[in-house]
Amino acid sequence: MNMSKIAFVGLGNMGGPMAANLVRAGHEVYVFYLSEAALKQAVDAGAIAAPSAKEAAKGADIMITMLPAGIQVTSVLVTGDALLDEIAKSCLVIDCSTIDAGSARELSKAAADRGIEFVDAPVSGGTAGAAAGTLAFMVGGSTDGFAKAQPILACMGKNIFHAGDAGAGQVAKACNNMLLAIHMAGTAEALNMGVNNGLDPKVLSEIMLNSSGRNWSLEMYNPVPGVQKAVPSSNDYQGGFMIDLMCKDLGLAMDASQASRSPVPMGSAARGLFNLHQSQGNGVLDFSSVYKLYQKR
Amino acid sequence: MNMSKIAFVGLGNMGGPMAANLVRAGHEVYVFYLSEAALKQAVDAGAIAAPSAKEAAKGADIMITMLPAGIQVTSVLVTGDALLDEIAKSCLVIDCSTIDAGSARELSKAAADRGIEFVDAPVSGGTAGAAAGTLAFMVGGSTDGFAKAQPILACMGKNIFHAGDAGAGQVAKACNNMLLAIHMAGTAEALNMGVNNGLDPKVLSEIMLNSSGRNWSLEMYNPVPGVQKAVPSSNDYQGGFMIDLMCKDLGLAMDASQASRSPVPMGSAARGLFNLHQSQGNGVLDFSSVYKLYQKR
Amino acid sequence: MNMSKIAFVGLGNMGGPMAANLVRAGHEVYVFYLSEAALKQAVDAGAIAAPSAKEAAKGADIMITMLPAGIQVTSVLVTGDALLDEIAKSCLVIDCSTIDAGSARELSKAAADRGIEFVDAPVSGGTAGAAAGTLAFMVGGSTDGFAKAQPILACMGKNIFHAGDAGAGQVAKACNNMLLAIHMAGTAEALNMGVNNGLDPKVLSEIMLNSSGRNWSLEMYNPVPGVQKAVPSSNDYQGGFMIDLMCKDLGLAMDASQASRSPVPMGSAARGLFNLHQSQGNGVLDFSSVYKLYQKR
Amino acid sequence: MNMSKIAFVGLGNMGGPMAANLVRAGHEVYVFYLSEAALKQAVDAGAIAAPSAKEAAKGADIMITMLPAGIQVTSVLVTGDALLDEIAKSCLVIDCSTIDAGSARELSKAAADRGIEFVDAPVSGGTAGAAAGTLAFMVGGSTDGFAKAQPILACMGKNIFHAGDAGAGQVAKACNNMLLAIHMAGTAEALNMGVNNGLDPKVLSEIMLNSSGRNWSLEMYNPVPGVQKAVPSSNDYQGGFMIDLMCKDLGLAMDASQASRSPVPMGSAARGLFNLHQSQGNGVLDFSSVYKLYQKR
Repeated sequence: MNMSKIAFVGLGNMGGPMAANLVRAGHEVYVFYLSEAALKQAVDAGAIAAPSAKEAAKGADIMITMLPAGIQVTSVLVTGDALLDEIAKSCLVIDCSTIDAGSARELSKAAADRGIEFVDAPVSGGTAGAAAGTLAFMVGGSTDGFAKAQPILACMGKNIFHAGDAGAGQVAKACNNMLLAIHMAGTAEALNMGVNNGLDPKVLSEIMLNSSGRNWSLEMYNPVPGVQKAVPSSNDYQGGFMIDLMCKDLGLAMDASQASRSPVPMGSAARGLFNLHQSQGNGVLDFSSVYKLYQKR
Repeated sequence: MNMSKIAFVGLGNMGGPMAANLVRAGHEVYVFYLSEAALKQAVDAGAIAAPSAKEAAKGADIMITMLPAGIQVTSVLVTGDALLDEIAKSCLVIDCSTIDAGSARELSKAAADRGIEFVDAPVSGGTAGAAAGTLAFMVGGSTDGFAKAQPILACMGKNIFHAGDAGAGQVAKACNNMLLAIHMAGTAEALNMGVNNGLDPKVLSEIMLNSSGRNWSLEMYNPVPGVQKAVPSSNDYQGGFMIDLMCKDLGLAMDASQASRSPVPMGSAARGLFNLHQSQGNGVLDFSSVYKLYQKR
Repeated sequence: MNMSKIAFVGLGNMGGPMAANLVRAGHEVYVFYLSEAALKQAVDAGAIAAPSAKEAAKGADIMITMLPAGIQVTSVLVTGDALLDEIAKSCLVIDCSTIDAGSARELSKAAADRGIEFVDAPVSGGTAGAAAGTLAFMVGGSTDGFAKAQPILACMGKNIFHAGDAGAGQVAKACNNMLLAIHMAGTAEALNMGVNNGLDPKVLSEIMLNSSGRNWSLEMYNPVPGVQKAVPSSNDYQGGFMIDLMCKDLGLAMDASQASRSPVPMGSAARGLFNLHQSQGNGVLDFSSVYKLYQKR
Repeated sequence: MNMSKIAFVGLGNMGGPMAANLVRAGHEVYVFYLSEAALKQAVDAGAIAAPSAKEAAKGADIMITMLPAGIQVTSVLVTGDALLDEIAKSCLVIDCSTIDAGSARELSKAAADRGIEFVDAPVSGGTAGAAAGTLAFMVGGSTDGFAKAQPILACMGKNIFHAGDAGAGQVAKACNNMLLAIHMAGTAEALNMGVNNGLDPKVLSEIMLNSSGRNWSLEMYNPVPGVQKAVPSSNDYQGGFMIDLMCKDLGLAMDASQASRSPVPMGSAARGLFNLHQSQGNGVLDFSSVYKLYQKR
């Protein structure tokens, strides 16, 4: 693999460790972010701080954005800093943010209009995966764009999937996380009904794991405290994937369903439950805490 | 293992092959059922036809019932044939029917009142599992009852779980099948949204299988025609587990939720969808055909 | 109207004042119930206490049952006291209990088998309506049965509807109360979203009352404290129609949907919410308190 | 009332008759729209065609927009034609489009930044109400803005509500139409369950109208063919309020819920059903046709 000059914009809980892994892989990484503390941490990890997004992007081979929502990515690339007008045509833009598919498609088009390759590459795996370099990337873009992005993404993650054309990465993530929300809520609900009927949640979990009820939430992330070690439910639902973020992702799934006229009654039901739980003051707990919504008081 | 004299009442699509497997294992199996054809098939497999349930039960070490609903099991054991008043105290009663947990608990009590051991042991695995002897059994009853039932059930199945006390087998099955309905509907819904956005269902399935969306429906029973071979969706949704049966099981889950005051919003949402699909004339299709409910026309 | 000899079995919160209204209308009312206190209250109101249901029923022209569930009504009429075998063929049986339609149909058949007329006549209107004699009755049974029941029911209520054949009264009540649950939850949800967006719930209620959102919950029973006077929401959700009872009625609606293979996704969603709210310890509050489930904390 | 010079942009099925009613009330109405046919119709009704939105807006006292979505209104007022930079500070801008509350608030702010008064005033009442001048308007904006808009809106409608500050009109409409979707689906579901149990839908409707199930859908817009005359259900679900438009409005409700973190499980369930029905090819039918989704086939 060749060493690249990479501009990295957005150093939040995910972006910080991702940039550090790029440095570790031998790349020259220019970073920009509004938070001084985050910038300092990246510099400590070997990145080079830039005074602005524009400066970070100068001469970059690869530009990566990792920002909270579509409006910020659009601002950086098109309407605000407008970096698509600054970077070289040969620079590949990789947006790792989780945003709506519609915005991703528009950004891809805006890039193509300027002769620039753009891929959407949202991640899954959480902050632990970002630190360990074991993230999964779901990539939307041309075969060529995917081929170029693949070795870069491989410095930060383990599973790199080519989901399809522009926007397909965001669609794949919306589908996956909606399905995750559905089976997590379903798992919490089934286990709670078992417990209310006197069953031991460990025994019931074991039975369903070996039957047709098996799913990732039950297997890797049991929502009932004490059934598994080293999962958020056994740590007061601290850490993991916050209810607030799941609610954000379910909002994006609603957008995707609306834009493509796809009925999502199960995803909607799950969203209703996670939103109720969020409203009851649990936004910063891990998403498996939806189990608490069900429990008898 | 010792050879037992077994009375087997109920020779439907499941009961027939189950009785045959008991014969194959060396037991002396006395069968009774209202259908002449089913009786003949059992006799061809080596069972001995009895002229009545009462005659089948005479001198039995083990009595197995495999009937459509709680009302029939109760009739055979208590209110009609009243076999609990005919069999020896030493005879173990195993009810393999899928019925409501409340009835199972009442039957267990009625048996205990007469000094007889009763276990509820509903199965999963379908007609294919019944024929192959690879069913899973979820057993509710005393430790002693489970210990006695285990070697008998092992002649018909592979995974024999002790779910808990009386009724716990039925509760475990209701929980498992409710969760199955939830992730099947969720999987169909997520894949449909992906397809509507231009994604290849094989690619999206592969991505979600390797991500947090993974579940049994996606892995073993993909609902989109052509993604997997040898599953009902690739065979016009023929065979498999009928919508009508899933609707029955979701009704039992609603009963269990009502009796134990357990909220089941996700199970209720799934039930709504399977019922809509059933109403639209698809009761005899495999339950993965819920995918058709979602498809654009 | 002629004076009748009426046997009244079941003197709970509803039955007590109903029996008193029959006395007030000039009938001779023989009452039986297991609670001494309730019996005494009825006697104070002018009823005659009977030492058993059987004694109450002796020589009755009309027999009324007002009991918690189908199993009790069946016990009194058929399997336990078996009053259908005691009363005269000319005695009209009116069951005012809210039970499942299936049981109501079986009771009607059991009565018809003995040449006795039976109508199911569940009520709506709550304890206030029972005391004031302004209940609504939804009656299932023959035209003849309805004609005979009508003047008796008119002593206890204002609106007496003939819903259809045997069981139709119970079906009508299940449909009505399911729809009530749906629009109450929907109203609470819409008002909460308005409030979260800074709207005054009084203003928003007024707008929707004059638009297509209008419904009974919004008009007569606003779930937001302070919008209307003299409703449970403005009295800490005390009084009114308890969450526990709404959950019972939604369970009956699920039974009706299951028995008739009728999809009820909206009713199921409402049931999920009322059950969640019940699980969180609000079973004895008025059902409009579902608004609290939605509120931000 | 004084005669005003009004610019009217957007002459669709609703905008056309609304503009005509302004002409009828004596105002001087300058219209612009991309459809030649619609322009001609407006001119026939007495409006004056302008060659561009900018020309229509010249010297206007009042500017009204009636467009399909927030993006078009924003384009006309700010980013494209940018009429907020063309009109006089004294010109009141009334947006009658149904758009998301967020966009409405941004437009209000963009106007205020230029010293211009803006109100959001989405309508309900459909094309029939637009033609008859009996629309309802839900207005968001300052007391002053509402006072100025009121007499103009009164030329086109009957009920003019001041919902609150900027965006409140859109929020009120989203709440109302979500609640409408909920009780329409609930009404269809309850009536279908009654019909499946042998009840006459007219009788059941009458009972629920006189009980706590009463709601606007049941009273004004019964979804079962033949129960009421002169409603879409009795005319093959032609005319009325299209499924496609209800799905659009439910999408806006999801946006409002997301932006304000308001759980909307019932609205989500309704949206799932209307989306399923839309997917099955019924987008252009009246929204009461959701009854067909439930019917047995």
